[in-house]
Amino acid sequence: MANQNRLEQDIETLRNISDPCDGGVTRIGLTPRYRQGVNYIKAQMQAVGLTIREDEVGNVYGIMQGTHPTLPSIISGSHLDTVKNAGAFDGIAGVVCALEVARMLKEQNIQLKHNYEVVAFVEEEGTHFGTVLLGSRYITGELNEVDKDRLRNDEGQTLRQILQQYSTGVTTISAKRDPQTIKAFLELHDEQGPVLEATKTDIGIVDNIVAIGQLVITITGFAGHAGTVPMTMRQDAGIAGCQFVSHLNQYTLRKYAEQATLTVGKFSLSPNSANTIPNQCTFTLDIRSGDEKIVHNIIKHVSSLALIINDEFNVVCEVKQVSFKDPVVMDSGLRQLLQATAEDLGLSVRHLNSGAGHDAMIMSGICPTAMIFIPCYKGITHHPDENVTWQDMAKGTDVLFNTIIQLDKK
Amino acid sequence: MANQNRLEQDIETLRNISDPCDGGVTRIGLTPRYRQGVNYIKAQMQAVGLTIREDEVGNVYGIMQGTHPTLPSIISGSHLDTVKNAGAFDGIAGVVCALEVARMLKEQNIQLKHNYEVVAFVEEEGTHFGTVLLGSRYITGELNEVDKDRLRNDEGQTLRQILQQYSTGVTTISAKRDPQTIKAFLELHDEQGPVLEATKTDIGIVDNIVAIGQLVITITGFAGHAGTVPMTMRQDAGIAGCQFVSHLNQYTLRKYAEQATLTVGKFSLSPNSANTIPNQCTFTLDIRSGDEKIVHNIIKHVSSLALIINDEFNVVCEVKQVSFKDPVVMDSGLRQLLQATAEDLGLSVRHLNSGAGHDAMIMSGICPTAMIFIPCYKGITHHPDENVTWQDMAKGTDVLFNTIIQLDKK
Repeated sequence: MANQNRLEQDIETLRNISDPCDGGVTRIGLTPRYRQGVNYIKAQMQAVGLTIREDEVGNVYGIMQGTHPTLPSIISGSHLDTVKNAGAFDGIAGVVCALEVARMLKEQNIQLKHNYEVVAFVEEEGTHFGTVLLGSRYITGELNEVDKDRLRNDEGQTLRQILQQYSTGVTTISAKRDPQTIKAFLELHDEQGPVLEATKTDIGIVDNIVAIGQLVITITGFAGHAGTVPMTMRQDAGIAGCQFVSHLNQYTLRKYAEQATLTVGKFSLSPNSANTIPNQCTFTLDIRSGDEKIVHNIIKHVSSLALIINDEFNVVCEVKQVSFKDPVVMDSGLRQLLQATAEDLGLSVRHLNSGAGHDAMIMSGICPTAMIFIPCYKGITHHPDENVTWQDMAKGTDVLFNTIIQLDKK
Repeated sequence: MANQNRLEQDIETLRNISDPCDGGVTRIGLTPRYRQGVNYIKAQMQAVGLTIREDEVGNVYGIMQGTHPTLPSIISGSHLDTVKNAGAFDGIAGVVCALEVARMLKEQNIQLKHNYEVVAFVEEEGTHFGTVLLGSRYITGELNEVDKDRLRNDEGQTLRQILQQYSTGVTTISAKRDPQTIKAFLELHDEQGPVLEATKTDIGIVDNIVAIGQLVITITGFAGHAGTVPMTMRQDAGIAGCQFVSHLNQYTLRKYAEQATLTVGKFSLSPNSANTIPNQCTFTLDIRSGDEKIVHNIIKHVSSLALIINDEFNVVCEVKQVSFKDPVVMDSGLRQLLQATAEDLGLSVRHLNSGAGHDAMIMSGICPTAMIFIPCYKGITHHPDENVTWQDMAKGTDVLFNTIIQLDKK
């Protein structure tokens, strides 16, 4: 069994390695504060006897050598960086639980055939350079030398300049990994959503990381004085926008309540004056589903709806697709193994999609990959109130531990 | 018949007396530029032989003495100030047409029994001191000496300080009028709405200046990640707001399409991030009707709707009434006289409510008051594109002229 006290000790220590902020944790990748966090994790890794490796961009590994060290590694971990004023679990829980697995292996004198690597990815949140999943994208080779001069922080410094300050004398080990060196990657993460908690489920197994369509809708009408233009003669872009959103929301709920999410995160009117009929309304649509066909269906509906709104409100809707990300399927063998392991431990399991991106999404490009979700309080994340119980962390660690042992035999 | 060339000459001259702006007119009350506009109007008044009077706050009168100068005056006019980057007709048309009536009386050697006063109110728009209808409110006594020290412009100068710069050596005549000195006030104004133009009507007669209820609705939900919180588990303040607005709009259209206006001019989300479920939505409601009971009914519906939205979206709607202005009824005798006069001239007439406030609203507190609306292009106002045809201005002036002659006989 995982040791809850050790999990708590790691999380609480890292919670306190933070730049000053509003009650949460701020430990942005490749900053002096991040180095402090890395130093703590490295010390814990060394205490278990792991061999430390830090690559050129700051990803940190703690390696437990297997009895057959030429076999590819089993890797587990997550990211150690945070957004500004974050909670203490997003990413960190995955690193800490993978580290706990190493402790358990040592404690129980279990010798794996494969190397077991605990990884702490850097800059997953993208807070420092505006590029999410930076560490894992260097590992897969999606980012490379060129990007070190291209990527700049808010102060205009390049990634290369920051790395020189951050890593001086530490490492020049290439980040890019040969896929042949990895047997599997397992990432444990708090759900960042409310489903597991609400359904009293111990363990979530991620099937897909969802497809994401992002659109911006701009509706142009005609401004007028609130008191002098009769309602029937208006070209009110704001009312048209509210109707558009209401209709699309109802459609998505009716057809895809369990399979997709539609989010209108930004919505603004122009001129945004209490006594002026808005001549322009702009809003964003964020459409996600494990099934990319559903995202396409909803986008198709958006286009049809635009025509109806144009006609009904005498406005012009412009529909602009900003981006489309294909879904990423997790490895089915690993998913089955996770499920069997969790059930053997008597834990309840739920399959779900990950609506957020994770390093696992990137790693799946070079190796079999799967994710374990553990419940988090009310689904709150990127907020000081993010919370995971030590018991749930321990359950997740146990699943990870047993899965790695099973995987090692294959 | 009114002389269209003279009307054009006045409007175009005043259009060019403007501070630099984006294609429109900027002549804010009590500024040096405003003094230039006043000087032009005074010169025109003097050319017709009117006696000039400028009061302590900058309202300007041109008085044509009647054969029975102890009788109360018939007054007509409007305001000479503009908003920033305004059109050339809002307010100005009423001053210019009233001035043209004086020219027509002189031209036709008509001697009225009553004094006829052409008035140019100051600071109706409230652009300088944030207080609308300033000039007329000094005339009725609603504003007084105390307000000269209380009202401040954006630079922190008091109205008294600005008046000292503006009026030095010009006048100390009290603005406040004894109601006994006024027989009637008639204000001609462009409609600032699209109804007369769309219905091809020559003359609008204002029945009421509408009651106005202004509310702010704040909806509080719960934030979450766009990808990780299933739609059925959300407390999405933005979707709740859009549904609220859509529903209320449909209700108002269904019940009061011709009798009321509902405007949602401001609408905002928090945190207003594309991939975050909004935890707060705030919007304004501007509800107007000639019948204050209808405004109250709609406000009552808002409260009921808030309860439904709370229940349906698991949010909390706070309904705050910011202000309520009672409707102002125009004098029925004057309205009948205006209608009879317009019909005698073979002009089409439509009764409507004024959805905007006007000096007439204030003047009605101390004397019988009525308003003539003339068509304006697409209802555009407070914009450089505001436009009124010279023909429509002339028709309005003819109605004003004939009404004043009839009124003089009573």
